[in-house]
Amino acid sequence: MIIRPKYNWFRMLFVWHGSVLPQILPRLLLLLLVSTAVTYFHGTIFQYHVPLTAAPFSLFGVSLAIFLGFYNSVSYDRFWEGRKLWGALLNDTRSLARQALTLSGYPPDAPQVQHFVRLLIAFSHALRHQLRHTSPAADLHRLLPPELAATVQQAQFQPVLLLREMGHWLRQAHTTGYLDTTTQLAFDRNLNQLSDIVGGCERLANTPVPYTYGVLLHRTVYLYCFLLPFGLVETSGWATPLIVVYIGYTFMALDAIIGEIEEPFGLEDNDLPLNALSTTIEASLRELADLPALPPTPPHTGYIVD
Amino acid sequence: MIIRPKYNWFRMLFVWHGSVLPQILPRLLLLLLVSTAVTYFHGTIFQYHVPLTAAPFSLFGVSLAIFLGFYNSVSYDRFWEGRKLWGALLNDTRSLARQALTLSGYPPDAPQVQHFVRLLIAFSHALRHQLRHTSPAADLHRLLPPELAATVQQAQFQPVLLLREMGHWLRQAHTTGYLDTTTQLAFDRNLNQLSDIVGGCERLANTPVPYTYGVLLHRTVYLYCFLLPFGLVETSGWATPLIVVYIGYTFMALDAIIGEIEEPFGLEDNDLPLNALSTTIEASLRELADLPALPPTPPHTGYIVD
Amino acid sequence: MIIRPKYNWFRMLFVWHGSVLPQILPRLLLLLLVSTAVTYFHGTIFQYHVPLTAAPFSLFGVSLAIFLGFYNSVSYDRFWEGRKLWGALLNDTRSLARQALTLSGYPPDAPQVQHFVRLLIAFSHALRHQLRHTSPAADLHRLLPPELAATVQQAQFQPVLLLREMGHWLRQAHTTGYLDTTTQLAFDRNLNQLSDIVGGCERLANTPVPYTYGVLLHRTVYLYCFLLPFGLVETSGWATPLIVVYIGYTFMALDAIIGEIEEPFGLEDNDLPLNALSTTIEASLRELADLPALPPTPPHTGYIVD
Amino acid sequence: MIIRPKYNWFRMLFVWHGSVLPQILPRLLLLLLVSTAVTYFHGTIFQYHVPLTAAPFSLFGVSLAIFLGFYNSVSYDRFWEGRKLWGALLNDTRSLARQALTLSGYPPDAPQVQHFVRLLIAFSHALRHQLRHTSPAADLHRLLPPELAATVQQAQFQPVLLLREMGHWLRQAHTTGYLDTTTQLAFDRNLNQLSDIVGGCERLANTPVPYTYGVLLHRTVYLYCFLLPFGLVETSGWATPLIVVYIGYTFMALDAIIGEIEEPFGLEDNDLPLNALSTTIEASLRELADLPALPPTPPHTGYIVD
Amino acid sequence: MIIRPKYNWFRMLFVWHGSVLPQILPRLLLLLLVSTAVTYFHGTIFQYHVPLTAAPFSLFGVSLAIFLGFYNSVSYDRFWEGRKLWGALLNDTRSLARQALTLSGYPPDAPQVQHFVRLLIAFSHALRHQLRHTSPAADLHRLLPPELAATVQQAQFQPVLLLREMGHWLRQAHTTGYLDTTTQLAFDRNLNQLSDIVGGCERLANTPVPYTYGVLLHRTVYLYCFLLPFGLVETSGWATPLIVVYIGYTFMALDAIIGEIEEPFGLEDNDLPLNALSTTIEASLRELADLPALPPTPPHTGYIVD
Repeated sequence: MIIRPKYNWFRMLFVWHGSVLPQILPRLLLLLLVSTAVTYFHGTIFQYHVPLTAAPFSLFGVSLAIFLGFYNSVSYDRFWEGRKLWGALLNDTRSLARQALTLSGYPPDAPQVQHFVRLLIAFSHALRHQLRHTSPAADLHRLLPPELAATVQQAQFQPVLLLREMGHWLRQAHTTGYLDTTTQLAFDRNLNQLSDIVGGCERLANTPVPYTYGVLLHRTVYLYCFLLPFGLVETSGWATPLIVVYIGYTFMALDAIIGEIEEPFGLEDNDLPLNALSTTIEASLRELADLPALPPTPPHTGYIVD
Repeated sequence: MIIRPKYNWFRMLFVWHGSVLPQILPRLLLLLLVSTAVTYFHGTIFQYHVPLTAAPFSLFGVSLAIFLGFYNSVSYDRFWEGRKLWGALLNDTRSLARQALTLSGYPPDAPQVQHFVRLLIAFSHALRHQLRHTSPAADLHRLLPPELAATVQQAQFQPVLLLREMGHWLRQAHTTGYLDTTTQLAFDRNLNQLSDIVGGCERLANTPVPYTYGVLLHRTVYLYCFLLPFGLVETSGWATPLIVVYIGYTFMALDAIIGEIEEPFGLEDNDLPLNALSTTIEASLRELADLPALPPTPPHTGYIVD
Repeated sequence: MIIRPKYNWFRMLFVWHGSVLPQILPRLLLLLLVSTAVTYFHGTIFQYHVPLTAAPFSLFGVSLAIFLGFYNSVSYDRFWEGRKLWGALLNDTRSLARQALTLSGYPPDAPQVQHFVRLLIAFSHALRHQLRHTSPAADLHRLLPPELAATVQQAQFQPVLLLREMGHWLRQAHTTGYLDTTTQLAFDRNLNQLSDIVGGCERLANTPVPYTYGVLLHRTVYLYCFLLPFGLVETSGWATPLIVVYIGYTFMALDAIIGEIEEPFGLEDNDLPLNALSTTIEASLRELADLPALPPTPPHTGYIVD
Repeated sequence: MIIRPKYNWFRMLFVWHGSVLPQILPRLLLLLLVSTAVTYFHGTIFQYHVPLTAAPFSLFGVSLAIFLGFYNSVSYDRFWEGRKLWGALLNDTRSLARQALTLSGYPPDAPQVQHFVRLLIAFSHALRHQLRHTSPAADLHRLLPPELAATVQQAQFQPVLLLREMGHWLRQAHTTGYLDTTTQLAFDRNLNQLSDIVGGCERLANTPVPYTYGVLLHRTVYLYCFLLPFGLVETSGWATPLIVVYIGYTFMALDAIIGEIEEPFGLEDNDLPLNALSTTIEASLRELADLPALPPTPPHTGYIVD
Repeated sequence: MIIRPKYNWFRMLFVWHGSVLPQILPRLLLLLLVSTAVTYFHGTIFQYHVPLTAAPFSLFGVSLAIFLGFYNSVSYDRFWEGRKLWGALLNDTRSLARQALTLSGYPPDAPQVQHFVRLLIAFSHALRHQLRHTSPAADLHRLLPPELAATVQQAQFQPVLLLREMGHWLRQAHTTGYLDTTTQLAFDRNLNQLSDIVGGCERLANTPVPYTYGVLLHRTVYLYCFLLPFGLVETSGWATPLIVVYIGYTFMALDAIIGEIEEPFGLEDNDLPLNALSTTIEASLRELADLPALPPTPPHTGYIVD
């Protein structure tokens, strides 16, 4: 995620980092080239005058508006739903930690309580690693007893196994008399919600927007842009390349942003900062349970928070 | 569902599998023919010049934008709601399995617990078979005792009968003292949610978008496309067929995608991969309950996951 | 609701049943007449040339798009919310039946359980009759003891009285020891949801879209259509009537569909099939509770399911 | 709220009551005057020809469409959310009454139960009075014991005090053994929902759409309308005033409707009929609890239900 | 938040406070200057005639409409979600106070109950201070015992610590016999909701709309506005500057409003009045718990409520 202050309107026009301009520059230069050539040859191809006017482009505009508007909304909804799921993860782990601290028969600083809070922290990290296809080994071994860490690491659905482990913790506390039945079920309700969060993240990660939409959007956007010079050259003369590149910029840039936020758990510039989010969860749970705080992270430089 | 990596913008323009182009090709060729004929005869029909200009088409554009935009959103919402229901199915069956493992008085590896988990797996498969009108016999017999499988198979609403069976399991566990009342009700709440999931899928499957919308959309799209050459020939000359086919492609392709995702439980290219989803549910529940894992599936070839 | 297979794109253009064409034909013929007259007299009224061009119509288009787009979404949302409420009704009655079968102390085939399931079935029918202003007498007497049927029939809010009756059933079961307190409350939560469903249906039925919107939409659509020939005659010549009727068709047809689905509980072609839905509920509950199945309904002919 | 049958399409064009025409007539006449003057003087101001064409107006159209579309959706959402809250009020008070009748140890016709139901009725009326800034004195004294009515009347947040009073009723019933703890909490959950309803209504009533949007919308709409004649006079000649007034009518009427439904609890024509709604709640609760029915209301005349 | 009565349509055109005009005036004057210059020099740059017409601008219009429409909806949704969260805060704290007064074994005027209500009030203020990055010291010391206030003040996540403190209060009440287990869990459910509210506010505050959208929107809006005079000067002559400034006003003003409500917890004119909201919560809770009322606030002057 890009974290950067908003400047005044004038300076915003020249922002480089945080815009997608670097990424689409080659395509824009190609478009500039094509439209300059078209202008130079007066909108002809091999001596055939191309009889395009602006009229068909306002017809194209209809489908373009539908595709872009739709795809953009859908992608942003995916991004925001991903963020909501990680927000809910923070809320629920906090609630479970609070419950472990105040509803169980254990004193707030009992090792059992601390183990439970560590399970919650490990759960958050494991979910992040699952979504980004990275290895959770380091985080699991840092937080859990060795044999548990090893078991979890071998599983295919790691966060789900950690949930089962929490269930076993509850059973243990219940059997040893530190938790009565109704209280155990109050914890269990929150475990159900964690289960919903895992499943929600898996849903977003495994089911993209139907592939065909992407193909169609791409084709519409790029054919539109590369046909546009023929349509404008008659009336716009030497200004054609400038206008074409400007219009092309807005469409291609939107197409590029969409491509990033569509898969919100990745590592691109505009994706969700899962790293920062799981660190926040860990910090908040540690504060709640009076566990030793995390070492302070070095102040991040640059604009990208991952 | 089509699973395919996103290529760079240039290669995306020539993707064949995963686009709907093959499907609408005949219509596009017909459109090409018509528009070439119109161009060749200078926009006349039997010597009557057809006095169409681009102007009426931007008026048509208004209704076209409303219909396509609306129908597309509604269809995608149906697709995504279907996906959410199957995601909720995964979450709830996982939660119920965790509850059976950690909340009941049975040890985690008791045959009763394993039977309950098998009931959950059978439930997922039965729902898939109901939605796709296929026979659940094989899956039921693989997972359930013969007489239960036979009873369920004769029912009209099979997943609902399996839910009742889970209710009987709970009653049994309660009567024999392995489950107290409040815990039984915690299971029951999740059964209510499974009931909501079954009903939600039935709703999507049995209530299509009102038929009249489809008729209206079709007529608007196709008349628009086949009248368009008359409107453009005056100004666009020999480029008319190309433009018409291009505009026609965007509209017809969208119309075709909509037709697929509108009924998300079918077997078309862009439908939900119910097969893969229920296999995932089975794999996850088996891992949770330490049941023997499924045999590895052969790596799927091609781009379509059903 | 219209149940009809989707044909290929070509045959869809000529569908008669399931389109709203029959309904708006008179208006379209009037529009044809007017636009032919306008074309014949070259866009003049009593010798005054009407100086309209296509330009103002694209300005009209803005308000038309806003009104139609808005009204259409709102109406469809009402339709779909109505469908969701009836879906929830199916889910909740199934859940309550399952609870009566597996959570109470009664054996599954006790007359008390069967009475409860009959109450649920009667509830669904009573709701349908209330929404369609028909008499529930037949259904009530078929399902309930005579004196109860008589009491309910006299009430103003019949489904609500049936809910109270279910509450009394619970109290009875509780007092006689077949239901403990927590289980009674698990039933009660589902009764709360039935209460929400009744209220939701009443809300849709009693609060239409604000009347003024309808007036405004109508005026915009029809004035637009009947002024259009004056605006197109200059450029479109003899093709004017055809274009006007085609554009008019799309707008009037949408207006007509909206008018139907806006009140989803009625008896028009595109309304919800409450009859079929409540029969499904009855069939499913009967199967669940092993009550004698309904006599098979004669296969319905035609395309309309009410 | 306007309750009026829908007429056929032709008669709808001439509806007077229920349209906002009366309200915006003066503005429309002014617009007619201005546009007639502009037409008469051929689009000049003090001899300077005003060089406007239709082109800039289609550019204006973009912002106008965004503002109107957005403001309209937001206002309707506020209207419909208000309606949903009052629907939820009906559902929850019915549920609470049913609970008082069937879950408590009191017989259904005990004075305590009747007092509780009266509290619920008083709650609904108090909420209405708070939202409309009218005095609840009459309704409170009609329904509650004098001293309680007096206490509530002095409070700033009257419905909230009535909720506290229901809480005290529950405590009383609990202490005297008519209600066990879990049942008391089942009531309490519904009280939480009533609390949400009060807060939801306060939210809608106290937080309007940001003021700046309204200013901007107004300016865009009215400047557009009053500049329009200059833009159309060149091409539309003597038809200019008619077209301008017609376009102006659609925009001004929408602006006027929006202004009404934006604050749904008021007393304007299209606002929610809080009076009728709270009377319905009272009638339904009285029927449920076998309290004496309300005296029949005189048949309302005219089209407005408040 | 701006609280100001709505005037009649005519006076609204000249409202100064509450519009964003003051804020964007410099930019508008610059635009006026540029467009006057362009008009004076007949749309040339250094003697090169700029061959722009209105046509490309209607193509720009497509992307502009998508960006503005999307960004506006998203920002308003953030604003309204923020408002909903603070509404939920009011509802839940009221519910918790009611529960403390009527569900616990303490008499309603016990110091323990009053302490709990003070905790709730402190929670609301602490959340406000966290969101606005101001110091909660004064409010904490006003409401809480000194050592608790000191502990909370040092924390990083202050509202979360206060939630833990409420959990400890419950545990204390439970241990000393004033609260049985099920009632304690009813409180706990509401604490879970407060946890969700804190997390929801943090989500809105910490995750802005992806930065790249803002850059893109800015560039599109301002380039559009400053190129517009070249496109209109040919047809609109001396009216060009007026039209350009008017169109520019609508776009820039919308851009400015969006920038304000996008971060709803700030201190700009259109942000949420967190101060007023938390004072309302305090007033309502004090009335509920019969705590001494807040001193009357001086009537605020001006139109801005913070």
